[in-house]
Parts: sequence; structure tokens; C-alpha cells
Amino acid sequence: MAEPLRIALAGLGTVGAGVIRLVEANKALIARRAGRPIEIVAVSARDRTRDRGVDMSRYAWEDDMVILGERPDVDVVVELVGGSDGPALACARTTIEAGKALVTANKAMIAHHGLELAAKAEAAKVALKFEAAVAGGIPVIKGLREGAAANAIDRVYGILNGTCNFILSTMEDTGRDFADVLAEAQKRGYAEADPTFDIEGTDAAHKLSILAAISFGAKIDFGAVDTMGISRLLAADIAQADALGYVIRLIGMAEADLTGAAPRMFQRVQPHLVPFDHPLAHVDGATNAVVAEGNFSGRLLFQGAGAGEGPTASAVAADLIDIARGEIGAPFSVPVAELEAMAPADTGHRLGRAYIRFAVADRPGVLAEITAAMRDAGVSIESLIQKGRAGPDGQVLVAMVTHEGPESAVSEALRLLEGSASLAAAPLVMQILGE
Amino acid sequence: MAEPLRIALAGLGTVGAGVIRLVEANKALIARRAGRPIEIVAVSARDRTRDRGVDMSRYAWEDDMVILGERPDVDVVVELVGGSDGPALACARTTIEAGKALVTANKAMIAHHGLELAAKAEAAKVALKFEAAVAGGIPVIKGLREGAAANAIDRVYGILNGTCNFILSTMEDTGRDFADVLAEAQKRGYAEADPTFDIEGTDAAHKLSILAAISFGAKIDFGAVDTMGISRLLAADIAQADALGYVIRLIGMAEADLTGAAPRMFQRVQPHLVPFDHPLAHVDGATNAVVAEGNFSGRLLFQGAGAGEGPTASAVAADLIDIARGEIGAPFSVPVAELEAMAPADTGHRLGRAYIRFAVADRPGVLAEITAAMRDAGVSIESLIQKGRAGPDGQVLVAMVTHEGPESAVSEALRLLEGSASLAAAPLVMQILGE
Repeated sequence: MAEPLRIALAGLGTVGAGVIRLVEANKALIARRAGRPIEIVAVSARDRTRDRGVDMSRYAWEDDMVILGERPDVDVVVELVGGSDGPALACARTTIEAGKALVTANKAMIAHHGLELAAKAEAAKVALKFEAAVAGGIPVIKGLREGAAANAIDRVYGILNGTCNFILSTMEDTGRDFADVLAEAQKRGYAEADPTFDIEGTDAAHKLSILAAISFGAKIDFGAVDTMGISRLLAADIAQADALGYVIRLIGMAEADLTGAAPRMFQRVQPHLVPFDHPLAHVDGATNAVVAEGNFSGRLLFQGAGAGEGPTASAVAADLIDIARGEIGAPFSVPVAELEAMAPADTGHRLGRAYIRFAVADRPGVLAEITAAMRDAGVSIESLIQKGRAGPDGQVLVAMVTHEGPESAVSEALRLLEGSASLAAAPLVMQILGE
Repeated sequence: MAEPLRIALAGLGTVGAGVIRLVEANKALIARRAGRPIEIVAVSARDRTRDRGVDMSRYAWEDDMVILGERPDVDVVVELVGGSDGPALACARTTIEAGKALVTANKAMIAHHGLELAAKAEAAKVALKFEAAVAGGIPVIKGLREGAAANAIDRVYGILNGTCNFILSTMEDTGRDFADVLAEAQKRGYAEADPTFDIEGTDAAHKLSILAAISFGAKIDFGAVDTMGISRLLAADIAQADALGYVIRLIGMAEADLTGAAPRMFQRVQPHLVPFDHPLAHVDGATNAVVAEGNFSGRLLFQGAGAGEGPTASAVAADLIDIARGEIGAPFSVPVAELEAMAPADTGHRLGRAYIRFAVADRPGVLAEITAAMRDAGVSIESLIQKGRAGPDGQVLVAMVTHEGPESAVSEALRLLEGSASLAAAPLVMQILGE
């Protein structure tokens, strides 16, 4: 048997402990499939004394994770600390600069610094792999980078945040409101104490920017992702979507727009109405799913557990097996120098159907005011639901679905209504996922 | 730019023409992703004169496909002729023996001769790749071989035949009978003039045996696949399944049975009742889907177009890009010499729920006879539907669903009823897909 691939782990939280458990539990089959053993030799974390449920005494300990990659007995550093900058980024840089491979589950770091790190890795001819950064245990980076490599992909979208999907599908099943379900998710460990990154869509936006770059051969542009979370959703939105034949899912959606002189990129994270018969409508709980549309493959769907110790460890270990097998390619499928810089697409011209929910004062003339604004902006209304009675706050919800039309028309209608005394709160707009 | 990877195509049917179209249409992006151009240099087919809608004059022509691999200007032969033996196998052997890589979409050849060809390829240190042999454009071979490589997989199953799935979902949508829908599928090109391989489950069995080998690290054992097709299904079965909360899908199912002294392998292709809320229940038309359950990844689902010119060409080209990138690993994930020979599992001990449909004579006492046999064999009946009136042939359909119990008990009950004058035809048994 060939020489082992020697691993150092930076970060010993849930995923780090999971990687240790996996590498131990599946040792023999990993060696058979990788062609050589994979051995953990060194670890680093903030707190050496914490009981992690696995025996750490077999591994060398480093207080400073940044120097793991400089150890002569280490071939690959697995970074599981998280955070876009700070120690994770320092560790990534020193590892690659030391000529060692880096495997990471850190979506924030890749979204912000992936191009720099990939360029460094290409120059050093070492692997930089991040399967675990997107959609947990689902091999979707590999699916896009290799499985669909022969295709021009012009659209990639999916359910990229398990916390939001757990909250939305629980709201759907129970009729409970957002805050209530979030509190339960926190208690059960499905949501962080500070859930902002998840519920405001930032985590999904990190992942979407990575998927878009690989799918379109584009430079990552996380800053251009138009991001809206799920915290403004009401139980009433879910109920009204249901009555109209939809479920609500937080969808990350990216499209390559090749219609102009220079290619542009559309990237948006937003709750969408998903028709009951769409495959993503059946993705419940903490599950993730990604759809990619290739010009020859057609629509491909990848689905599985989006987070958790086991699935994330599975993705990390798949990267390690690739490296053990000698498969070191361009991290973003094409070399960084050949990635296109795509400016953000203009969204006003996009055609689609939208769900718009207004919270209005319960008095005569309000519906006339709203529908007049729609008419004046050229928005055609397909259906409209007004809840009969005002709530204790004296507000009434009015929800409508538009016929297909430009997004700019909806924006214009909302602009006409801005400042109206009839509106008790800013309207909520969600796109309807098409075929 | 590095030297091109030079391809020869053996077989210029739909898929061959698709590969040519894809390699031409996506030339620039393939070169960028593969790190070098992929060029078709030579072709071979039975009929040189047929118009295939693509310009063949640019490629060298060989009347004999078997010698394509011996041409000094060829690096990879793509075999798209089909058939488990004959010219396809001769071509595969000479190609690998000439030290050239082989890419094939030929599931029958891999199911029958994959181990021999893989051993030859490993000895010659050349690639043997067959992504297109299973589930068309879905990168499921790569997903199992690489994406889930760190997992012990003990169960892999899915919808592996697009023709059957088209027929079943059309029967479901229209209430029409099998023969009628098959005729339409043939007219529309979704089924072959001789549909036997598809509708009797052989094609799905070929694919299942390949998935099982890669998932379990086992030697392919196509002969051990217990195979039943869909030709005996009636519109009434679909209607009764629907009334009970199920759709009917042809499922290929393989499990590693590690409970005994030596590992065994269970492989079965059979129409199953699939609960409405299972992801496979929403796989309609010619779509394929594969589920793999890894011990760390959890349940992974891969879904997409299972056949057709574009999707199959996409899978072939993904293999070519892998080869261009230098990714040449063991075809079955572990070297052939390390694959385990797994004897077929004993199915009698399997626990499950079953749907059993009887066509019976319309006379008193028949139900008593059937239910007595069930009782005597220890089969517990969960629900039973008898259609009120006999058809023009004087037969009545009785369908039942059993509680969970051993498959051997159901077999025993049917044995007790064998030869009974009450039964107008052999009963039809389908398993119910569990969680």
C-alpha cells in the first residue's frame, strides 16, 4: 500500500469531530477507494481540554492552527473553523503558501476570498477543495465541476440553507408563525443562537455565489447577490400560498445573461413561491437541493442533507479521497485567470410572476388605491385574496399574484404606493418559481 | 494550450451524433475546463452513407470499428454501438489492449464484461469510464465513485429506465392500459420497436448491477438480479395503488447484507408501490433518479434525464473531460482484485409490506379461500379492495396490501393457492417501498 495522506484538522467542533469519526469508522474502505490510507496526524482548536467524545491523544496538538500547514508531517490541512477572515483565512494562506493542499467547509471564506486562494493554489500546484462549503453532504460542487463539465450551464438554483427550510416547512406543517418556529429550531439545535446569517439569507448567498462561479465560469461576486431572508414571512403568507397551489421556499437563483454585449450574472436569494408539482416543493426539513440546467444534460437535481456532522464530514472526506487519488484540478473548474468578470445583470427587464402581500388599514378605498397603482404601473393581477377581518392591530392582509410581466413594473407600482397612509407596513414581494 | 485529446467514435446513432454536436457546440468551454481541446479525429459506423445531420467529412472513416483504438492518432475510443458482446466488446478489448482509454454508454457490456474490461484497463493503466451507461445525463457513477466515496453505502435504489417510467406515469395520468400506452410510446420514439429489454426490466437490471458493484465494492453479478418488468400491470393496479396513497414505479433496489459470516448482496428490479410523499413518487416521464444511503452522508438523491441524445452525450463528454484532466482511477472505485465476491442474499427473510393482486372467478367462496391461505401462511392483511363487478371475461380483481412481514410468508400463501380453480391468472406481487 502506498504512503498515507497525512491530515491536520483546524477546528474541532461538530464537523471536526465528525471527520475524525468518519476517518476512523470507514478507515479500511477509504484506503481501498483512495488507493492509500488517510491518517489524521495533527489537530488544533481553541480549547484543548474540551471533551469532544473522540480520543484526541493520538494526534499532535498545535495551539496555533495557522502553522499546521508548515508541519513537515502534514500533506493536507482541513479548515473547519469558519468565518470569512481571521484565523481561518490566515490558516488557508499559510497552508497553500507552504505548498500543502487545503480542504475547507468555509463558505464565507470561499465567497469572499476564494479567487485569491484559488490563484495561490494554482500557482503552488496544490489542491483547494470545498465540497463541504455548499449543500453539506451533497456532492454538488463535483457534480457541476466535473459531472456537468461538458455543458454550458445558464441557470443554477436551489434550496441552500437547511435552517430556513426547516423553519419554512415547519411553519407549513403547523400553521405557526416565524418567531415561534425559530425559537423551537434554536432549542433543537437547528438554528444558531444568533441566527442572522441563516435567516437573512447571507449563508445561502455565500453558497449561491460559489455555485454561480463554477457553473458559469465566472469570478465569484458575493457582493452582487441580491439577498432577502425569511424573517418577514407570516403564517398567513404560507396559508395563502397554499391556497394558490404553492409552498414557500428560500431559493438561491443564479443565471448567466448572455444577451448583451458582455455576459452578465444574475444572483438572488429570496423566498419564492414554488408550485406543488416542482421537485423543490417536496424538499422538506433541513434538506438541501440544487438544480442545474445544462445545454445538453437538461435539468439535473442533487438532493440530500444540507448540514450536520455526518453529511459535512462525508463531503470533507470525499475531497480528501480526491486528493489522495491525485485529482488536483482548478478549484473553480477553469483556472482563475480564465474566469470571466460578469457584471450584475439588470433585474428590471426580468419577466416573472410575483406574489405581493400588503398589510393595510381596514378602511374603504384601500383596495381601489392599490389596484389603481397596479394598473398605472402596468401590472396585471391574476388573483387577489383579502382576509375578511382586521386583526387586533386593525390591519388587514391583502395578497395578490400577478400575471407574468417585468419586475420593473412591480417596483414601479410599489413606488407609486410609497408613503401611502393606507399601507401599515412595507409590502412583501416574492417571485414565483417558474418551470 | 496543451495537446488535444483525440477521440474516435464507434457508432453514429443518436448518441454518437449527439456527442459530435456537443463537442462542436461547447468546444471552447470544454477546452477551458479540460485544460486542453477535445477533438474528434475518426469515426466508424455500419453505414457510411446515412445522413446524420452532422458533417462527417472532417473525420477519418474506418469501416471496422475494432481497429479504431489501434490508430496512432487516437487517444480515446468512445463505444456507442451497444450490445453486450459482438463488435462492441471486440472494440473495447482491442482499444484497451492497444493502451488507449475507453468510454462507453454500453450498460449491457459493462454488466456482463465490466470486470474483465476493468482488469485489463487497470493492467494497461488506461481509463475505462461508463458514466453514460447508467441514468443518462445524471452524474451518478461519479457521485457514488467519488462524491460518496468516504461512505459505506448499504442501499442504492432508483428509477433506472425512462421508457418504463414514461409508460407508468402516462398510465397514471390517463387511466389507460399498458399495451395502449406502450404503443403510443413506440410511436413517439420513447420505446423501441422491440421493447422487451426495457419493459421486462433487463435494462434496469444492467444498470442496477453496475450501481451495486460501485456502491458496495462488490464484483458485478448481473445474473443474480431478480428481475420483473411492468408488462403485467393493469390500469386497475395503478388506480388501486392511487386509492391507497401510492404510485407505481419500476424500482431497481440493491442492498449489502452484512449480517451473516460473509457479505451478501440483494439485487431486485420490480415494480414497487411508492408512497406519495417519497421523493421517487414525483419522478415522472422519462426522468431517472437514484438514491444512495451512505453511513455518514445520509440519503443522497440524483435526478435528471435518463436517456436521450443530449443527456447521454453530456455524460460521455464528462468522462472525456476527466480523461483529459488526467483523472484515471479504478473503474469500479476500487481495483478489480479488491472487489468482494458477494453471494446473492436470501430474500425469504426480508421484511416488508406487499401489494398482491388476484384475478379471480366471480363466485362465492373465493375471498374466503384467499384469506384462509393468507392466514395459514401467517400473512396479515392491512387492507383489501375488491372491484364490485366482474369484467367481460368474468374475472374480478382483488387487491390487498399486507402488514409488514417476511417475504417468505407471502410466497408460502401463494404456494398454498397454486392450482386453485378460483384463480384466473397467476397473482401479481409488488413490494411497497419503505422509508
